[in-house]
Amino acid sequence: MSSCLFCKILEKNIPTDFVYEDEHVAAFLDIRPTKKGHVLVIPKKHSDTFLKTDPEILSHVVHGVQKVAHAAVMALGADGCNISVNNGEAAGQVIFHLHWHIIPRTADDGLVNWPHTSYQDGEAKEIAEKIRKFL
Amino acid sequence: MSSCLFCKILEKNIPTDFVYEDEHVAAFLDIRPTKKGHVLVIPKKHSDTFLKTDPEILSHVVHGVQKVAHAAVMALGADGCNISVNNGEAAGQVIFHLHWHIIPRTADDGLVNWPHTSYQDGEAKEIAEKIRKFL
Repeated sequence: MSSCLFCKILEKNIPTDFVYEDEHVAAFLDIRPTKKGHVLVIPKKHSDTFLKTDPEILSHVVHGVQKVAHAAVMALGADGCNISVNNGEAAGQVIFHLHWHIIPRTADDGLVNWPHTSYQDGEAKEIAEKIRKFL
Repeated sequence: MSSCLFCKILEKNIPTDFVYEDEHVAAFLDIRPTKKGHVLVIPKKHSDTFLKTDPEILSHVVHGVQKVAHAAVMALGADGCNISVNNGEAAGQVIFHLHWHIIPRTADDGLVNWPHTSYQDGEAKEIAEKIRKFL
């Protein structure tokens, strides 16, 4: 048996509320949902994080995410949804098998998006230049 | 001139700190960053939301997101990053041209991920069944 929780789920060794499955991806309810109907979409081939994933697999997963997000919004009668991936412990990733969160949202449901800050003069240009050096 | 802010940015009609551009996507600093180095990645072909976007374009964008996220993490010396898309006003979408947020994160940087709730007995099965009906 795999030591990865999501690989165990894929091996059907753990009771799971699946909503979708195809050759490349699977989707199931998060057992600790931010909102009811919060779904996780994962690649069947294990990959620790988004950054380490084969781009071809990312294509399969993002197509699955689109299908499942549409279905979750329709099923829950939601007004929209947030789609997110946490990369690394510092970003809140707990299970190290790539997973995309789909969180159905309704207007005034109480969830608050993160706050914003601003750049000082010249700071944005410097940061953009730093990032470009890695591209 | 387009009426869409991000289309105007693509037409280079607005001063913007670009970090990446290829045939299909462009990436630039968010002017109201959640964290310094917060980058937006957008498709060049206009699409209002993630759910309405041609799957082939989603593939291009997700590949761009991976490249740019790697660069942003490296450039900022970050420990990880969050990647997210807000679909619809209820989910916090403000500009209706598909955009992916990349937010570099460091351990203990003060951002708090959303809280969790739980399902009552049988509720998760019911919701999963509802979602499956749309797939």
